[in-house]
Amino acid sequence: MGIIDKILGKSEKLNIDEYEELDLSEYEAEISEAAGVYIRVAEVTGLNEVPEIKREIYDGNIVVADIAFIKHDKLTLDRVLKDLRQLAEDVKGDIVGLGEDYVIITPTGIKVDRNKIRSSSR
Amino acid sequence: MGIIDKILGKSEKLNIDEYEELDLSEYEAEISEAAGVYIRVAEVTGLNEVPEIKREIYDGNIVVADIAFIKHDKLTLDRVLKDLRQLAEDVKGDIVGLGEDYVIITPTGIKVDRNKIRSSSR
Repeated sequence: MGIIDKILGKSEKLNIDEYEELDLSEYEAEISEAAGVYIRVAEVTGLNEVPEIKREIYDGNIVVADIAFIKHDKLTLDRVLKDLRQLAEDVKGDIVGLGEDYVIITPTGIKVDRNKIRSSSR
Repeated sequence: MGIIDKILGKSEKLNIDEYEELDLSEYEAEISEAAGVYIRVAEVTGLNEVPEIKREIYDGNIVVADIAFIKHDKLTLDRVLKDLRQLAEDVKGDIVGLGEDYVIITPTGIKVDRNKIRSSSR
């Protein structure tokens, strides 16, 4: 509706009185707009995807890198992981492997908790 | 330096002159302190882990649920996923499968981008 356009467009001219009958779907849109952190999955086949991963991290988003395609190519894997580790260090983010196929890279201020949730720990 | 303290700590009273010799390690600690969003992996073996996942999501953290242990137990998988989907809806977060073994659940305001980063898309 109108209010979403205005919020998404970041217009300064919003007239609140026009929108007294705001419905729930509009409210949801506002919630998601307010946050702006995204998780994005990257299928890494080499160094080609690294620049876009960097952009996401610098934008404050989280990337889950799928390294399944390169995990048996030691040289490529080494290069990619070295770049991603440097990236995480540069922004004071975090980098952690998830299983055999994924690496989670986080932006400034988001960390990966090394303690897993598992019922045996309780 | 001092100005970072002001921005991160939002203190009005800080005297910038006092912090001229701030070193890098202090800066790192401030950055991580300021954010407070965590990603936590949960090894899901049944409904037992759901309450702790809920706590994390309500605290504003992201959970990556490892469902490898239950993926062949249709009944349990269905129950767990139903609970997690309801959770994501309740907080206006998000829920998305990652490969065959993982489900990402996000808190309010964090969304999963359905567009993967892949070099073939460029």
